[in-house]
Amino acid sequence: MSTKPAIGFCGLGAMGMGMATHLVKQGYPVTGFDVWPPSLEKFAAAGGMPSSSLADSAKDKAFYIVMVASAPQAQPALFGDDGIVKALPKDATLILCSTVASDYVKSVEQELKDVGRSDLFFIDAPVSGGAGRAADGTLSIMAGASSAAFEKGQWLLEEMSAPKKLFVVDGGIGAGSNMKMVHQVLAAIQILALSEAYGFAVRLGLNGKDVFDAVVPSQGWSWMFENRSQRTLKEDYFPGASAVTIILKDTGIITYMSRRANFPSKLCSIAEQVYFSALDRGWGANDDAGIVRLWTAEPVSSITSSLSAEQKESALELVIDLLTGIHLVSAAEAISLAHHVGIPLPQLYELACDAAGGSTMFKQAGAKLIEILEGKDAGKGSVLGGYAEKLKIVVDKAQEIKCPLYLGSAALNALLATGPSLSLGALLDGYSVKQGSV
Amino acid sequence: MSTKPAIGFCGLGAMGMGMATHLVKQGYPVTGFDVWPPSLEKFAAAGGMPSSSLADSAKDKAFYIVMVASAPQAQPALFGDDGIVKALPKDATLILCSTVASDYVKSVEQELKDVGRSDLFFIDAPVSGGAGRAADGTLSIMAGASSAAFEKGQWLLEEMSAPKKLFVVDGGIGAGSNMKMVHQVLAAIQILALSEAYGFAVRLGLNGKDVFDAVVPSQGWSWMFENRSQRTLKEDYFPGASAVTIILKDTGIITYMSRRANFPSKLCSIAEQVYFSALDRGWGANDDAGIVRLWTAEPVSSITSSLSAEQKESALELVIDLLTGIHLVSAAEAISLAHHVGIPLPQLYELACDAAGGSTMFKQAGAKLIEILEGKDAGKGSVLGGYAEKLKIVVDKAQEIKCPLYLGSAALNALLATGPSLSLGALLDGYSVKQGSV
Repeated sequence: MSTKPAIGFCGLGAMGMGMATHLVKQGYPVTGFDVWPPSLEKFAAAGGMPSSSLADSAKDKAFYIVMVASAPQAQPALFGDDGIVKALPKDATLILCSTVASDYVKSVEQELKDVGRSDLFFIDAPVSGGAGRAADGTLSIMAGASSAAFEKGQWLLEEMSAPKKLFVVDGGIGAGSNMKMVHQVLAAIQILALSEAYGFAVRLGLNGKDVFDAVVPSQGWSWMFENRSQRTLKEDYFPGASAVTIILKDTGIITYMSRRANFPSKLCSIAEQVYFSALDRGWGANDDAGIVRLWTAEPVSSITSSLSAEQKESALELVIDLLTGIHLVSAAEAISLAHHVGIPLPQLYELACDAAGGSTMFKQAGAKLIEILEGKDAGKGSVLGGYAEKLKIVVDKAQEIKCPLYLGSAALNALLATGPSLSLGALLDGYSVKQGSV
Repeated sequence: MSTKPAIGFCGLGAMGMGMATHLVKQGYPVTGFDVWPPSLEKFAAAGGMPSSSLADSAKDKAFYIVMVASAPQAQPALFGDDGIVKALPKDATLILCSTVASDYVKSVEQELKDVGRSDLFFIDAPVSGGAGRAADGTLSIMAGASSAAFEKGQWLLEEMSAPKKLFVVDGGIGAGSNMKMVHQVLAAIQILALSEAYGFAVRLGLNGKDVFDAVVPSQGWSWMFENRSQRTLKEDYFPGASAVTIILKDTGIITYMSRRANFPSKLCSIAEQVYFSALDRGWGANDDAGIVRLWTAEPVSSITSSLSAEQKESALELVIDLLTGIHLVSAAEAISLAHHVGIPLPQLYELACDAAGGSTMFKQAGAKLIEILEGKDAGKGSVLGGYAEKLKIVVDKAQEIKCPLYLGSAALNALLATGPSLSLGALLDGYSVKQGSV
């Protein structure tokens, strides 16, 4: 008999399967539930205990992890008549790892009280890192909860996360989800940015491989660019590793929460409209790296460039300047939103610099933006004139070749709306965040 | 022999043909040039004198009108070796009616000096109103020039315009083009707005005819909506009356000039990206009312609505609120740009209220926006909270049904970026226009 505590687990999709089987490998007896029988079989084959009853998966479990796709899936799983909450024993620890709106996790906290289950130790703990890191137990986890709940459950979060990748976020329930949401602002914008950049590049007559080689060591680098390029360059979209519907779900949470907070998510909301248009093309289940097909029917790596060396260099510079400008504004958008919802900014910086939302511009400008918001830079920060001028040249060129730049043109508008000062502080003001207010 | 002066005319397209034949009907001897022989034949059949030589069309003409499609067409026609300027007699009046950037007409003024033709009386006089009004001599004309040039040529502008529809704009050469550009801000946004609104409506389950009937008497009315609906409801897009490439050309002038002026054309620039995507679909030569096909493959008037009366009413309200919100922000965008480039605001108001850029919101909010910019409303105007809340509900619903709202979401962001004040003044500030500055 195992000396390690039994764990219940709901949601054996790509992420959940990795997390649950990792725990099995660590010697935990894990009872896993899923509505899809083949997942249960796969879980059993990996040494887990499958359960076709939610209530059974929760019965007598001092620890329970929920990793379903969305709030509409979580709600009946948690609070249904045969659901998890009713079945959990007294003083159990319940961890919700799904990416959901912070409003939703707060409603779960309230509903636990309303149904008389205040005894449960509830943790809001969305994750990041993809299926590979889930299976390795090296996820990034952003967690918010009471200190009592962390005392009970932090060891389990540590089992699933990499060293230093468990971020305990101040603010209780909702803070983990808010941190994840803010991080996904970067992800949502930067995923579209790379397709826009490759699409623009193709229309400039560049080959995708040359673009990759030029962007990676440049100021235009982002984690998403480097990661998704592997699929863009091979047209590995069917189904690929991360469907359009996944980033669209996260984008939807961001823009929905932004509207509730009266926050203008300038780039994220335009990204969402373009993701909708990708859905309309029937690409929802394809990899998000395939959104470049909005710009080009030809594979980006099959373009035979007829540009001279000089023309090629100047075209590559335009692509880098496009990404740099977008990533700069995405940094301001994410950090402003973090400030708006009360996320600790240095923690966001630490997390995002080394995660899927990372970019060279986030590293560089992010630090300065945070100084301004924390009142440590009375001068309101660096001047953006150079970035605005470069992005203008990019948008001029795109206009000449009639290439849509949804993010590029919106990022330029955000820079121009800073007015004559063209300062980072004015860029933050454009997100209507006032210094010192939260 | 005619007692009326001879007129030279270059550019017998849809607009130019109407203008030139109208002058013929008024008894002027008009010599018309075009590069397209069938146009010359048509002009001859209408009583005009065709000329296959630009220089001949200008020789001995005390008055000359240029109505080509764009600056790249105008430049060689004017300044080529066998062009108009070389051939015109001393002290002739030269009127450029094409819609071009004000920078370009200023460059023409300068080049006339540089080539030693300061004797010519040059008038910058873009027109509006479509081919029908061109042929009737009832166009709106926005003209800028020296008072000496107006003394020479104003009578001819009056021949081509409706009573009270000749707008002599202060500011000399460039002022006419700037006025046209600012008016086209409204047109460019409102043309996309109606397709977005019909597309959203179809996805809400509404029939296009019901949308038309509900919007026309509502706050969501615009001239463009009422005009283009005639084609949208009949799918009369091939070729229709106004190609996507035409509004795209004007939009391009607006955004290009805006970038030069550091002006964030928030809605116009997203409209441009969507027009580019329509080009990508191969719709450039189709009527702009057909952009609704980005949202629906089915004709909007063929939708059989299964909504209850109550559902229908609430869906129609969403569509009206969408248009109202977009038109409100488009009014702020146009008026801010007008202020930015020094266009007399009351004149813009008079012109646009009763022209293709007109909308109920422009009439209502436009007057207040102008008061604020002219310093007559120290309170910075009405509060926008109601509009923002309604538009939020619209964008929430669109998100739920995964319907892209490019303008709707950008307009909401512009409203939210006004911060807690939600005032018209803050909306103007978002366009970085400071009170009193020009």
